Amino acid sequence: MSFRLATEADLPEIVRLLADDHLGGSRERYTDPLPPEYGIAFAGLQKIGAEVILAEDESAKVIGCLQLLVLPGLGSLGKQRAQIEAVRIESSLRGKGLGSDLIRHAIARAKQKGCKMVQLTSDNSRQGAHRLYERLGFKASHVGMKLYLD
Amino acid sequence: MSFRLATEADLPEIVRLLADDHLGGSRERYTDPLPPEYGIAFAGLQKIGAEVILAEDESAKVIGCLQLLVLPGLGSLGKQRAQIEAVRIESSLRGKGLGSDLIRHAIARAKQKGCKMVQLTSDNSRQGAHRLYERLGFKASHVGMKLYLD
Repeated sequence: MSFRLATEADLPEIVRLLADDHLGGSRERYTDPLPPEYGIAFAGLQKIGAEVILAEDESAKVIGCLQLLVLPGLGSLGKQRAQIEAVRIESSLRGKGLGSDLIRHAIARAKQKGCKMVQLTSDNSRQGAHRLYERLGFKASHVGMKLYLD
Repeated sequence: MSFRLATEADLPEIVRLLADDHLGGSRERYTDPLPPEYGIAFAGLQKIGAEVILAEDESAKVIGCLQLLVLPGLGSLGKQRAQIEAVRIESSLRGKGLGSDLIRHAIARAKQKGCKMVQLTSDNSRQGAHRLYERLGFKASHVGMKLYLD
């Protein structure tokens, strides 16, 4: 597995992965052409300096992705942190350690960018993912809360 | 209580609040002059369009604060979300509903900015805060995980 930064041309493959999931299946719209909202969101991520990292197999097929945001903050003496979101591994390839490799790559990138901490939230139902993150050293120290707006 | 956006000149009062807390006390450095890290972090927040919102009492004394970040993301059809961080109410004024008013103000601001969701994480030890967020409609649907880097 190798890693690279996504460009806008990768959006169809990314949305395919986002939808290939028990939660994402009902939340995404993987159509051809893609709904324009995905392109707008990708441009927004670029604007704040966030990265979409892709994992590819040896035939350059995209088999994993995540978003890595570097966030400033006043707390903890102005510590800069990295936030990982929208992690996916192709459903047929799960359980082979590819997710761990992808997250390790993101952690290394966060260090390169001067972050002192990496944070993420994971849906309560993703028990396998929680174990994976704990094996990588993450601590489940927080409750992740969401409020959906009309 | 009234609300306004913070400027860099408000940093000493903000850091005083951040440090006025059972977790923040050991993580912050409230000195005169302030460590330069806080000014750098404030500039970083401005650069990504984040806001630091202050709550003031009738004599214009700062009694509460939070950070509101508007984050783009590919997931959920490119839904833009707001993230609330570093929430504090002056310790002598807690338990009077001021925290709820401050969070309600931030939720209204997130709606104005076109966000479809507001998210936050809260340390497992902040049980009172969890109840406050649940009363405002937040659901504890996620686990919040952190990895500290050397």
